[in-house]
Amino acid sequence: MDLGISARLAPVLREVADMVSNEIAPLDAEYFAQVEVGDRWTHNARQLEIIEGLKSKAKDAGLWNLWSPVTGHAFSTVEYAYLAEEMGKAHLAPETFNCNAPDTGNMEVFEKYGSDDMKSRWLEPLLAGEIRSAYLMTEPDVASSDATNIALSCVRDGDDYVLNGEKWWATGAGDPRCAVYIVMVRTATEGPRHQQHSMIVVPSDTPGIEKLRAMQVFGDDEAPHGHMHIRFTDVRVPASAMLLGEGRGFEIAQGRLGPGRIHHCMRAIGMAEKALALMSRRALAREAFGKPLAQLGGNFDYIANARMQIEQARLLCLKAAWMMDQGDARAAAPWISQIKVEAPRIALEITDQAMQMHGAAGISQDTPLARQWAHLRTLRLADGPDAVHRRQVARAELKKYTQEKI
Amino acid sequence: MDLGISARLAPVLREVADMVSNEIAPLDAEYFAQVEVGDRWTHNARQLEIIEGLKSKAKDAGLWNLWSPVTGHAFSTVEYAYLAEEMGKAHLAPETFNCNAPDTGNMEVFEKYGSDDMKSRWLEPLLAGEIRSAYLMTEPDVASSDATNIALSCVRDGDDYVLNGEKWWATGAGDPRCAVYIVMVRTATEGPRHQQHSMIVVPSDTPGIEKLRAMQVFGDDEAPHGHMHIRFTDVRVPASAMLLGEGRGFEIAQGRLGPGRIHHCMRAIGMAEKALALMSRRALAREAFGKPLAQLGGNFDYIANARMQIEQARLLCLKAAWMMDQGDARAAAPWISQIKVEAPRIALEITDQAMQMHGAAGISQDTPLARQWAHLRTLRLADGPDAVHRRQVARAELKKYTQEKI
Amino acid sequence: MDLGISARLAPVLREVADMVSNEIAPLDAEYFAQVEVGDRWTHNARQLEIIEGLKSKAKDAGLWNLWSPVTGHAFSTVEYAYLAEEMGKAHLAPETFNCNAPDTGNMEVFEKYGSDDMKSRWLEPLLAGEIRSAYLMTEPDVASSDATNIALSCVRDGDDYVLNGEKWWATGAGDPRCAVYIVMVRTATEGPRHQQHSMIVVPSDTPGIEKLRAMQVFGDDEAPHGHMHIRFTDVRVPASAMLLGEGRGFEIAQGRLGPGRIHHCMRAIGMAEKALALMSRRALAREAFGKPLAQLGGNFDYIANARMQIEQARLLCLKAAWMMDQGDARAAAPWISQIKVEAPRIALEITDQAMQMHGAAGISQDTPLARQWAHLRTLRLADGPDAVHRRQVARAELKKYTQEKI
Amino acid sequence: MDLGISARLAPVLREVADMVSNEIAPLDAEYFAQVEVGDRWTHNARQLEIIEGLKSKAKDAGLWNLWSPVTGHAFSTVEYAYLAEEMGKAHLAPETFNCNAPDTGNMEVFEKYGSDDMKSRWLEPLLAGEIRSAYLMTEPDVASSDATNIALSCVRDGDDYVLNGEKWWATGAGDPRCAVYIVMVRTATEGPRHQQHSMIVVPSDTPGIEKLRAMQVFGDDEAPHGHMHIRFTDVRVPASAMLLGEGRGFEIAQGRLGPGRIHHCMRAIGMAEKALALMSRRALAREAFGKPLAQLGGNFDYIANARMQIEQARLLCLKAAWMMDQGDARAAAPWISQIKVEAPRIALEITDQAMQMHGAAGISQDTPLARQWAHLRTLRLADGPDAVHRRQVARAELKKYTQEKI
Repeated sequence: MDLGISARLAPVLREVADMVSNEIAPLDAEYFAQVEVGDRWTHNARQLEIIEGLKSKAKDAGLWNLWSPVTGHAFSTVEYAYLAEEMGKAHLAPETFNCNAPDTGNMEVFEKYGSDDMKSRWLEPLLAGEIRSAYLMTEPDVASSDATNIALSCVRDGDDYVLNGEKWWATGAGDPRCAVYIVMVRTATEGPRHQQHSMIVVPSDTPGIEKLRAMQVFGDDEAPHGHMHIRFTDVRVPASAMLLGEGRGFEIAQGRLGPGRIHHCMRAIGMAEKALALMSRRALAREAFGKPLAQLGGNFDYIANARMQIEQARLLCLKAAWMMDQGDARAAAPWISQIKVEAPRIALEITDQAMQMHGAAGISQDTPLARQWAHLRTLRLADGPDAVHRRQVARAELKKYTQEKI
Repeated sequence: MDLGISARLAPVLREVADMVSNEIAPLDAEYFAQVEVGDRWTHNARQLEIIEGLKSKAKDAGLWNLWSPVTGHAFSTVEYAYLAEEMGKAHLAPETFNCNAPDTGNMEVFEKYGSDDMKSRWLEPLLAGEIRSAYLMTEPDVASSDATNIALSCVRDGDDYVLNGEKWWATGAGDPRCAVYIVMVRTATEGPRHQQHSMIVVPSDTPGIEKLRAMQVFGDDEAPHGHMHIRFTDVRVPASAMLLGEGRGFEIAQGRLGPGRIHHCMRAIGMAEKALALMSRRALAREAFGKPLAQLGGNFDYIANARMQIEQARLLCLKAAWMMDQGDARAAAPWISQIKVEAPRIALEITDQAMQMHGAAGISQDTPLARQWAHLRTLRLADGPDAVHRRQVARAELKKYTQEKI
Repeated sequence: MDLGISARLAPVLREVADMVSNEIAPLDAEYFAQVEVGDRWTHNARQLEIIEGLKSKAKDAGLWNLWSPVTGHAFSTVEYAYLAEEMGKAHLAPETFNCNAPDTGNMEVFEKYGSDDMKSRWLEPLLAGEIRSAYLMTEPDVASSDATNIALSCVRDGDDYVLNGEKWWATGAGDPRCAVYIVMVRTATEGPRHQQHSMIVVPSDTPGIEKLRAMQVFGDDEAPHGHMHIRFTDVRVPASAMLLGEGRGFEIAQGRLGPGRIHHCMRAIGMAEKALALMSRRALAREAFGKPLAQLGGNFDYIANARMQIEQARLLCLKAAWMMDQGDARAAAPWISQIKVEAPRIALEITDQAMQMHGAAGISQDTPLARQWAHLRTLRLADGPDAVHRRQVARAELKKYTQEKI
Repeated sequence: MDLGISARLAPVLREVADMVSNEIAPLDAEYFAQVEVGDRWTHNARQLEIIEGLKSKAKDAGLWNLWSPVTGHAFSTVEYAYLAEEMGKAHLAPETFNCNAPDTGNMEVFEKYGSDDMKSRWLEPLLAGEIRSAYLMTEPDVASSDATNIALSCVRDGDDYVLNGEKWWATGAGDPRCAVYIVMVRTATEGPRHQQHSMIVVPSDTPGIEKLRAMQVFGDDEAPHGHMHIRFTDVRVPASAMLLGEGRGFEIAQGRLGPGRIHHCMRAIGMAEKALALMSRRALAREAFGKPLAQLGGNFDYIANARMQIEQARLLCLKAAWMMDQGDARAAAPWISQIKVEAPRIALEITDQAMQMHGAAGISQDTPLARQWAHLRTLRLADGPDAVHRRQVARAELKKYTQEKI
């Protein structure tokens, strides 16, 4: 169980880390400031210059599509996990390396389950970073923590499917470059509970699609990407848009979610490291009562606890990645649930303490901490709330001792 | 030690509670939506209609300046605490009853320490709700947790004082109706550490005052009130603007902060109650895995813990208020420190759990929870961070056992 | 809602506090040492001298049966709560004032529900401190958290009842002075779930009663009182031993448990105060790295948190006592559940931190902390585990919003 | 960074795990019961039969001195860590495999720093399991958290050293088989603070050694091993008993403590696993309110959290072991501090929850949980309290950002 940095990973990791801290992170603030210049929901010229410039550099350096097991470096999940951690340290980093969610997950779906037509129409431009995509799962009217509740209807009508209903929290769908959606739909109301749903591919400009609003995260609409609330009214796509076949939605979802969750979690570890670094520097630089903050009250404890939490959570993520690399997704599932709970939890706690160490600056625009906190808070809900994942971990544990359904 | 609802308070409390839930809370959302209509930093016509309409109703009902021990009902601190709790349940409630911070504290300062001229120029229109005020304490370049660090210079020059330096987090100073600032300044660099500072009254339109920017709280600039970052360049005020005399800044600050902290804390209790109510309703209304959320996992525990935390924190606030009512501010001080730590802490925790119970809706604009959370988070920093208050509580405890300085 | 120390309580409270700290606490250690001298399960001469000497002094001072609403001072529950807190600070204190569990609860049962014969045979010597009693509820083979599981059979046979089954954790039943048991039994297996049980009075020397062993608490058998595991084999008592009538066991239990739980909780608050005092003194007296421990690391925070937890938990207990004094036991029930969770929880945490502040001495016989911790740990289980009480609190909360059964 | 189970370890680990669960654990209860038969401080015939029988079996199976890097299997620290985890699951397991503390640490000291005479007189019989040893570090009158406080005096007198002072918590020194002590002494009162102490070898039967008492852990004296409080009065040993030379005590202590702490921590992980297994089985077997406990309240969460805590803490221990295996003890030190805090912490929490799931049985002699809890509680103090280790971790973190002394 080698959880270390492999020889072939080491130089790439160094390059990525350097680019993140030296070239990407310094541009984050300007990028955000530009959101307010011109139409908030379109990348303006300077924003495009920033992001396309970074992407070009990354491509030129061979640091492109690093996530993919089939293109480029073909890193293992463990190896990629270390890269994802570094990408957590700047807002623009994942997109720079064409490694941002939900595109990576969507690209994987197209790669594994897409038709040739889908591959040429959607996968190729996604791999090239020319378009963006969204993944439409959650719905406003049902408890998505139990995904069998999902209700957006998809009815066969001749050679077409017709979609009606609402989705929300469609991350990235506000971006005008977002050209395609993968949508979880209900195609049956009877039969086994996990075979009533399907995944279907819908171009974002299909008639009948209406973006109702951007969901706000602690007041931030996250323009220009956005988490969109979308209504489907008689949206019609050809039958060939169905992925894998009716009723196979959960099968695809399971395959899609594992790696994505590891990426999310390792980026969260990166954010935790960033918060700890900011907290440590502040503790040394700021004085009160005649001493650096580091020497006051429980600050040694906060710093020590942060370090201990990070080390443990990172190792757990790496072990989950290693489990994934062993090829048995079912065996890896409880490990994914574990990190899904633990990585955001500790990253939130450490970020909160880093904010507190900064005084009022910590919750303001003067540090990246408040934005980071809000983003991390979404991870306790996205892809299933903590409670659902704890439930999965507990049931896996109890199954060691009983044959009965728990 | 009567901590209950007095006979004379009961009917007023009922009226306030009814007005908050039936008339004020329903207008909060529209008021916030109107922020985006027209200049964000000016109240537009509809906003004025909303807030002035509510104020008129409150005045007509005799529910005005409820905080004041000298006007109106002359409630005790314990009595007012119950009212403040209700006002925590709607954003516009404190202003409706002319009970909002920092105006209440500023009015108290004028009442206790102001010259006749200050009373007629500032106190009267404040008591009438015609102008607003700000309190300028914190500075960007020093650790305000140790207020003896405060550095904004105030130098006597003939019959004037001249102010130079920066303040930030001047809450309410973005509001065009904000006409006057009370400013903590440094008037000496030698002598006893707690006698180098003073408080001075500065009209907000004095030349040399520059609003640099609005500080953001988790990305929200809180327009039109705002937490402003302000630069003073050779700002000149007459010597008569000095409150009480040079070197007496801390004396005034101490008198000012006690009641204000209790108000903040009781509003926080109100927010916690609101979060618990939302959490409970959601737990009953939403189903997953075939059951209402209430019956799943640890949700009983979250609800029970919330109830237990609220009851304890409320009683602690009431006891602190009762201590204040006994007239010995020095004896009450450690109690104020206690609630300053505990009330925001439990309100934050309960609000966070309420968000989680709501799924993604909980962190969005569809509930008041995320905004409430962000506001409560500021209370762990405003008027001294947790660590400073814990330090005060611990030192008060240890003094029981030693004569030595701890 | 007066939660303060009444004028008539004040002098009694002072006397009790003085006697606990000056006369009782100093004898605790010798009393425990004497357990090892002679038969561990009998009070030896010196033990009797200690405890009877203290009881005489208390009686002479009029500090006797302070718990009772009908004898002596007739204190309210709020008033008695303050006394119970002081009694928590020495092991021998409750017995000294004839206020120890489970005797107080048993005396209340006899007072309220006992026949004249029971009163003269059991209540009078109990009130005089001449005998001791036990309360037999919990059973080894059922989850007593759901008391409707209780199974010890009690069958009418002519003019007698015949009991068969096992009880454990019969506190005080190891004491040779323990003359009588009140036993929760099952008298029916059909009918409404809360009417199948009864309470019956059984002299401890009735044939067929067998003390199987003393249950140990963290290895301590707590001789000579003990928590006994007892077997009943054809134990025969006259029909007149039945309290109130068949099927009314839960009715009696409810009336019995409320005050007893408040007493337990206020004694726990007393223990928490004692731990905080020990922790504070140690923090000042012990040095490391050239400073008193108080000034190192997070020790200010531990002390402050302890103070804040104690104040809040005490106020909650006082409010629960006040609710009880209002006379509606049903309305008071969720408050009793709240303190049943919170008081032991905070007392355990503070005691644990006090142990840690003492280094290895803290877990040894050199401080009373380890013994106190073990005792407090039992309170998270006795009279219902935390989970059951949290469940009750949550259901009381949710009932505000629904008519349906939760 | 391979943290997995190596091919050569796998079969040995299986054998050890089998022997622990099938042969050793079932004898624990009888062994403890025998403590009360005859002299508590001597192994009686049955106790000797039990322990020597197990040792013979282990020797015959080649499962002997598994800890040693120079005898037997020469396992790496990572490999041995897995074995130590299994040994945590039965009280008698460490001694069975001649892997118990403090003997392993003492044997390492003799191996690395002992003279030929010491090796033949002490190391050989220790390696053969014929004698036992103790390590005398902590003292009653100084804060041992700062080991430079250690005060037991050791003065050169001709060819001898003469020792005077007190030690306590000398684990294992109550055992009559304990033949030799390694003692940390003060040999200088001037000079660099970490060069004033030395380690010296003292036969346990040297005149002037007096065992004052056994320290109790939550009331348990842990006979016949015991944690002894020992007085040295003019205890005289030859100069050749000094290890390595005067002033080198800390040098030896550092080398000694690292592996020992990892062993302690991995045994703690084993205890946590045992507690989780007991908790899970109980959750399935016991019913209340008509359901298995597993399905009630927050029990899924407790079980899930336990699993997540264990996985993370184990990985952290394995990483610390791996750091140790890289050969740079200084670099490994903060990792050892991390696990010293985390492993006991999570094991205590999980054991506490397992107790709670068992109801009153959980704190009694009917499960091994209460004894295990008490033992784990000592680990938060032994070899330095949590606060000291957190301090070390924080300082290591802050050193990344400053050259100054923190």
